[in-house]
Amino acid sequence: MLPVHLQPESHVPLYVQLRDQLRALVHAGDLRPGDRIPASRELAVALGVHRTTVANAYAELESEGLIQGHVGRGTFIRANGNGLKITPPAPPVLDGARGIRWELLFADERGEEVLSRLTAAAPEDALSFVMARPAPDHFPVEELQTCINAVLRREAVDVLSLGPSDGYQPLKEAIIELVRKEGIAAKDENILITDGCQQSLDLISKAFVRPGDAVILENPAYPGAVAIFHQARARCLAVPVRTHAEPGASLGMDMEALEDTLAGNRVKLIVVTPDFHNPTGVSLPLASRRKLLELAARHSVPVVEDHIYGRLHGREEREPSLKQLDRADLVIHIDSFAKVAFPGLRVGWIVAPAAVIDRLRVVKQNTDIHTDQLAQASLAEFLRRGLFARHVAKMRKVYALRLAALDEALRKYMPEGTRWTKPEGGMCLWLELPAGFDASELLIHAKERGVLFAPGRYFYVQGPLPNTLRLGYAAMNEKDITRGVATLAEVLKMEMRKRTRGVRRAESSRVALV
Amino acid sequence: MLPVHLQPESHVPLYVQLRDQLRALVHAGDLRPGDRIPASRELAVALGVHRTTVANAYAELESEGLIQGHVGRGTFIRANGNGLKITPPAPPVLDGARGIRWELLFADERGEEVLSRLTAAAPEDALSFVMARPAPDHFPVEELQTCINAVLRREAVDVLSLGPSDGYQPLKEAIIELVRKEGIAAKDENILITDGCQQSLDLISKAFVRPGDAVILENPAYPGAVAIFHQARARCLAVPVRTHAEPGASLGMDMEALEDTLAGNRVKLIVVTPDFHNPTGVSLPLASRRKLLELAARHSVPVVEDHIYGRLHGREEREPSLKQLDRADLVIHIDSFAKVAFPGLRVGWIVAPAAVIDRLRVVKQNTDIHTDQLAQASLAEFLRRGLFARHVAKMRKVYALRLAALDEALRKYMPEGTRWTKPEGGMCLWLELPAGFDASELLIHAKERGVLFAPGRYFYVQGPLPNTLRLGYAAMNEKDITRGVATLAEVLKMEMRKRTRGVRRAESSRVALV
Repeated sequence: MLPVHLQPESHVPLYVQLRDQLRALVHAGDLRPGDRIPASRELAVALGVHRTTVANAYAELESEGLIQGHVGRGTFIRANGNGLKITPPAPPVLDGARGIRWELLFADERGEEVLSRLTAAAPEDALSFVMARPAPDHFPVEELQTCINAVLRREAVDVLSLGPSDGYQPLKEAIIELVRKEGIAAKDENILITDGCQQSLDLISKAFVRPGDAVILENPAYPGAVAIFHQARARCLAVPVRTHAEPGASLGMDMEALEDTLAGNRVKLIVVTPDFHNPTGVSLPLASRRKLLELAARHSVPVVEDHIYGRLHGREEREPSLKQLDRADLVIHIDSFAKVAFPGLRVGWIVAPAAVIDRLRVVKQNTDIHTDQLAQASLAEFLRRGLFARHVAKMRKVYALRLAALDEALRKYMPEGTRWTKPEGGMCLWLELPAGFDASELLIHAKERGVLFAPGRYFYVQGPLPNTLRLGYAAMNEKDITRGVATLAEVLKMEMRKRTRGVRRAESSRVALV
Repeated sequence: MLPVHLQPESHVPLYVQLRDQLRALVHAGDLRPGDRIPASRELAVALGVHRTTVANAYAELESEGLIQGHVGRGTFIRANGNGLKITPPAPPVLDGARGIRWELLFADERGEEVLSRLTAAAPEDALSFVMARPAPDHFPVEELQTCINAVLRREAVDVLSLGPSDGYQPLKEAIIELVRKEGIAAKDENILITDGCQQSLDLISKAFVRPGDAVILENPAYPGAVAIFHQARARCLAVPVRTHAEPGASLGMDMEALEDTLAGNRVKLIVVTPDFHNPTGVSLPLASRRKLLELAARHSVPVVEDHIYGRLHGREEREPSLKQLDRADLVIHIDSFAKVAFPGLRVGWIVAPAAVIDRLRVVKQNTDIHTDQLAQASLAEFLRRGLFARHVAKMRKVYALRLAALDEALRKYMPEGTRWTKPEGGMCLWLELPAGFDASELLIHAKERGVLFAPGRYFYVQGPLPNTLRLGYAAMNEKDITRGVATLAEVLKMEMRKRTRGVRRAESSRVALV
């Protein structure tokens, strides 16, 4: 039998796994032109999969010209003239009228496109809770413009020339000073400037993850992180995030589940957002932070700490970051300006052990040379002049008021049977509809009434709960938040009434039918 | 025997291939705790590799805790308590005193770091032919500053907010207009804005390349392209670039070799720089361009055209780009502002069929959300005001003069036995030293005399010719070019004399010994 190994728990469809492994066997020379391969029924039984799975894989390989069926004789690896080499892709790939059939050439199945699906065809003036993004009406534009002009006057040619891959030196220095104030002692060798947290995850994934490596993600998680590790062909292991504390079980990533997952798998990375977790808004208590670091050290697994919401704490005190608590030097701390101001400028950073930065710098160079220097230099000036600290302080107050307004509106308008998280900062809150409701369906009706949000299903690594949704409130003022919640609650109540009527109708029709 | 398949022609060391495949067999459950694996000598014979290869792979797996040797009994997959799961990484990864041994966790062997190796410890005022980069002293800084200020006055909040992944709309429109003037009819759906050509290659690689897929690269090639496809675990197939035309064999990528490579391999992409190829400076003649497109269409293989040097033609006329000639719609055309002005601003673009852009847009979103919008908007303004066209026209003249000065200096100073390419534009020229000379050694002596260049070996995908080197001249004025070449020639002549003396001494000592 063929040496094929399917992983049912993988995110990669079984037929894709089978197709790719068969292709690899041909490339490796294990299957040669003229070799007969098992009938789809036979292989399906041997692999314990549905026959359609095998049929789909065979169909794709046939359209690629790699195999060919002969009625009554079976399916064979396709031979060319000399009987040794593989024939080039067969005509189907180049379809006369339409040109190349690109979908046959792409490396992966198409992923979900969350944003565009969610916001498609919404009214122009819709109240949108979709995004977790900073309030544009508070951007300190004039202050930034002053910084940009200072930079261009002083160092234009430097800034506009090719720069170092690890970052523009004045920005690195400003970041060292920023994190020092936040309790992290970093030297120049511990800093890499990136295009933001999304790129930081991409670089980390490239530096660490081989196809098939296991990575622990929160469930639910930031979809951009899931996309990165899927792209890298990692096995994504989901550890649940508790949205409501119970006796003996605190908020945030479930430490018992983490312990079990680490015990049962060779894990390459743990990716976690301890502060104001996206999408749920919950934060990891201090005891869990210590436990997480202890487990990571015991299993020698690096921890990627996404600190992007970390400084947007609503209350004065905050939990120490994992990097602050990190004694074993295994935390890779990623952060960005994007949630405080100017997400249109793509600048973030990584704080990590020197050996990690050294490797990531090479990966960064091979990925996009370096980060835009005008943005780097302008933000360095913005930090140096104390404008960043001032803006963070201001926005913390603005967002705290918005969060309070959101919680108040939810308490006022939401029907019984809903519950939501109580974030103490960040940009989003997680709402649970009564069991049996699907937030994606609710969105259809809410969109008609001019309110948008992100259904929770898009954030799950596995086992999505359809009755969950995320409310990103930071970019909306209190009035809009209240209006939006009121409308959302109305729509929900209407759906609840429909369902009750539906149940009654179903009951009565059942009665009538008897 | 184990189902292990090593690819000797791969860039991945054999022991790494073996290590990874054994690890995968354990993860797939083919090898279970307690299973005995072959002795290294036995497996080496079976695989036809050196015993050290197997020993290295075993050593790494043992240090990971995956296998364990027992004297007199053999080597076994390591069992834990329940005999089913794999034990977590053994202590060696976390080395008490030094913390995590990161080198054991990285996904790949460390790549060459060309730039830093080349320029390390050079004198501050060295004349550097190392880079192919635009002349900073000609940057139209004031014009750009005017554009930046106009953008900030007019559309600051838009620019500084989160933007679309396919690019800032005004820049997309300006690019459509730019390429229209260059003979390419593109619509909005055919354009993706990126962080430059390096990122464009990364996105294309992510969209198309599965591990093990074959990609055709020029040999020598731009090292950034080689790095991208190595990172994606592609098989890089090298097609030679002819640097000197001979009867029946024209300049640039060798079309016969390309034809053979396409016939003998299932190829996913052809990556080519038809204009002023980096590193050799040669351009592909029209007939070869047509041939390349014909071959690509026949085999249904997309062509990635790196057009980054395309508009820096020294003479008035230029060959049409592959995209202009593309009837089968299989060219993915990548380009950037970086070689004309402002490489510190990271903005490039891709022109491709809509289906490809549609896919690349998703990949871009998952890679770094979008490109910096202040840079995008400022460059859009720079294009719209006609400043880009004006600057290109000016720089073409500047670089033509520098290229002429370089050729003249080479003819004046270089000793017999050297030859060099005759680029008609772009930013670099390729020099061959007399056979037997190693450019890397020459660099050591040249650096002492304050002249730097890039040894050719760093540009080869395979079979490096050590007597080659690249001279990047665009950022140097004519005087420095002439001084640099004179010094380089002096150093070379000195080395040639040493060698002659060395030969004589060797001869005389041989005589004495007899």
